[in-house]
Amino acid sequence: MTEALEKNIRKVVPYVPGEQPQNPDVIKLNTNENPYSPAPGVARVLKSMDADLLRLYPDPTNGCLVKALADYYELAEDQVFVGIGSDDVLSMSFLTFFNSGKPILFPNVTYSFYDVWADLYRIPYVTCALDDQMMIKKEDYFKENGGIVIPNPNAPTGVYEPLETFEEILQKNTDVVVIVDEAYVDFADGPSARTLIEKYPNLLVVQTFSKSRSMAGMRIGYAMGNKELIKALNDVKYSFNSYTMSRVALLCGVEAVNDKAYFEEHVKKICETREKTKKALAALGFSFPDSQSNFIFAAHKSMPAKEIFAALKARNIFVRYFNKPGIDNYLRITIGTDEQMQALEAALREILLQA
Amino acid sequence: MTEALEKNIRKVVPYVPGEQPQNPDVIKLNTNENPYSPAPGVARVLKSMDADLLRLYPDPTNGCLVKALADYYELAEDQVFVGIGSDDVLSMSFLTFFNSGKPILFPNVTYSFYDVWADLYRIPYVTCALDDQMMIKKEDYFKENGGIVIPNPNAPTGVYEPLETFEEILQKNTDVVVIVDEAYVDFADGPSARTLIEKYPNLLVVQTFSKSRSMAGMRIGYAMGNKELIKALNDVKYSFNSYTMSRVALLCGVEAVNDKAYFEEHVKKICETREKTKKALAALGFSFPDSQSNFIFAAHKSMPAKEIFAALKARNIFVRYFNKPGIDNYLRITIGTDEQMQALEAALREILLQA
Repeated sequence: MTEALEKNIRKVVPYVPGEQPQNPDVIKLNTNENPYSPAPGVARVLKSMDADLLRLYPDPTNGCLVKALADYYELAEDQVFVGIGSDDVLSMSFLTFFNSGKPILFPNVTYSFYDVWADLYRIPYVTCALDDQMMIKKEDYFKENGGIVIPNPNAPTGVYEPLETFEEILQKNTDVVVIVDEAYVDFADGPSARTLIEKYPNLLVVQTFSKSRSMAGMRIGYAMGNKELIKALNDVKYSFNSYTMSRVALLCGVEAVNDKAYFEEHVKKICETREKTKKALAALGFSFPDSQSNFIFAAHKSMPAKEIFAALKARNIFVRYFNKPGIDNYLRITIGTDEQMQALEAALREILLQA
Repeated sequence: MTEALEKNIRKVVPYVPGEQPQNPDVIKLNTNENPYSPAPGVARVLKSMDADLLRLYPDPTNGCLVKALADYYELAEDQVFVGIGSDDVLSMSFLTFFNSGKPILFPNVTYSFYDVWADLYRIPYVTCALDDQMMIKKEDYFKENGGIVIPNPNAPTGVYEPLETFEEILQKNTDVVVIVDEAYVDFADGPSARTLIEKYPNLLVVQTFSKSRSMAGMRIGYAMGNKELIKALNDVKYSFNSYTMSRVALLCGVEAVNDKAYFEEHVKKICETREKTKKALAALGFSFPDSQSNFIFAAHKSMPAKEIFAALKARNIFVRYFNKPGIDNYLRITIGTDEQMQALEAALREILLQA
C-alpha cells in the first residue's frame, strides 16, 4: 500500500465490544444480555418461516415492526424508526442530527461508543463530569452546543435520572436535538422519556431489543420522536442502505413486541434478582450507585476491581472491566438468573476470603 | 421545530428503492431478485435454530461467515469483510476510502446509489460517460481522482467489462481505492476481479447474497481485498455498529456459501432463461446491450418504455423504469423463471399489438 493510498483512508479508533466467549460453560455477565429466552413467538416464527421468501427483498419501510412498536407505545407510525440494534440507530442519529459544527455534549462516564461515533463523523464533543453520586449536573447542559446525548439509566453506572432533569435540558436546548438513550429503561422504576415526545420536537428517545427483550442476537433497535426527526432519520437511512432489517428480524421483532405479558414477567424477574444481588454484594463489601438497570456497577472496599475481574474469569465467570481513569476500580456485573448470581456470590466470597 | 433546529439536521435526497408490492400474484421482475429459493440448508437452519441463543450478541467478527467465504474463494480470512447487504458494504467503503477531498469517479449510467452515498458523506464526484455501446471509456479514469467505483457487470445496463480494463485502471490509480461492485458477476461469462486482489493492494471487490444466492431478504454482502483495506473497513464498522450481522444471518449465510452445487445449478438456469429471453425480446422489436447479469436493459423500437412499463404493471407484471435523462426509454427486466418470462412475452406481445 502506498503512503498516498494510506492517507486517503479514514483513520478511527474503533469501539471495543465486550468479550463474546463461545464456551457454553461460561457464566456470561459481561455484556448485559438477558438470561431468559426471547418470547415464545420468536421460536415459532423461526420454525414456521418460509425460507423461499428470503429470495425477496424485505419491506424497506420496516412497516410491520414500526406498526407493532407504534401500537405498543401508542404512537403514530411516523414517530417510530427501526434499525439494526440501538447502535445503528444512534450512529445514524449522530450522522443525521449533529451537523452544526458546534461541540455535542455527553457525560464523562457513559456509553463508550459516543466519542467513537463523534470521531468517526468528525463531530466535536465536550464531556460533562458526573457529580459524586454519579448523577449528571443538568447545568452543564445549558451552555451552547451542537446536540446532547445522555443515557437513562446511564451506563455503566446504572443510575436513573428523573424526567424533570430532561425536561429542563430540553427546554434550554430547543435548537438542538437531545437524544435520550434508553437501552436499560425497562428495568428502571421511573418512566421513559417517550411520554415527552409530543411536548418536545427536539427529543429523540432510543431503545433496543437487546436487553429487556432478550434479542441481542437479532439486532433490533428503534427511535421514537417527532415525525420530522423520524423523517430526517429515514432519509439518511435510505441514503445509507435501503434494506437494513432482514425479513426474519422484522417478523421475530413483531412477536417480541406483541407478547407484553412475557416481557413484563421477565423484566420483573430480573429486577427482583438485581435487588437480591445488591444485598449480597453490599454484604461482601461492595459499594455501588443504586442501579435501575440490568447490571450493577460495583467497587470493592479493599480488593482492586482488576484483580477480582481476573479471578472471576479464571473461574469461568465473565464480568466487564473498563481500564479507564475514574472507573478503573469498578466492575460492571450483568444481572443473570438467580442461580447465576448465586454462583457469582459464591465465587466472590471465595476470592475475597483468599485475598 | 425551530428553524435553527432544522438547520442542524443533515439534508439528503435519499435513494428510492424499487417497489416492493406485497401482492403474491404479481410477477416481480423489478428488483433483480432470484426466482429460486435459497439453498435448502438455509431452510434447515431456520427450522432447527435454537431461539434461546438470540438472547446473546452474535460474534462481532462475523467469524463463521468470513471463514466460509474465505474458504470458498481461497482467500485468507483477513481478506474478507461482511456486511448487511452490499449496500452496507459499499456505503461503509465510501466512508472509509474516499477521504481525499478530491472527486471520485464513476460511470454516468450506473447504480443510482453512488451519488447518494457521495452526497451523504459530502464526497465530491464526477461521472464519466459510457460510449455508444454502453461500455466505459477507460481513459476517463486515468485523471486525478479521490477513488473509483464501477460495477461489473454494470447496472442497469448489464454490460460486462473485461478484467484487462480494470487492470489498466488499477495500474493508473495506485494511490486511490478502486471498488469493483460485482453484485451481478456470478451471471457473467467472464471472471471476477477477485483474482486480482493479491496483485493490486488498491482493489476492493464487493459482492452480495441478494442476487445469485437468493437471499435479498436476509441482507448479506461482502468485500474482498488486501488485508489492510479490510482492516480499515473493519475499523470503521467497529466504529459504527459492533454487531451488524444477526446470528440467523450468519448461520444461513454459511449454508448458502457451502452449497456450491445448488448455487451453480441455479445460476446456470437463470443464464439459460436470460439467453432465451434475449431472443424473444429481439423478436418483439426490443434492442439491448448484451446482458451478462440477471436482467436485461431493453428499449423498444416504437413504443416508449414508460408506456410499456405502465401496461405491464396494469397486467400485474412489475419491471423497473428509470425516469432519468439518457435512459428513460429503457426497461430493466429481471430474469425470472421460464414460466414468468413466457408470461412477460405474452403480455408484451399483447401490449405491442394493441399499440
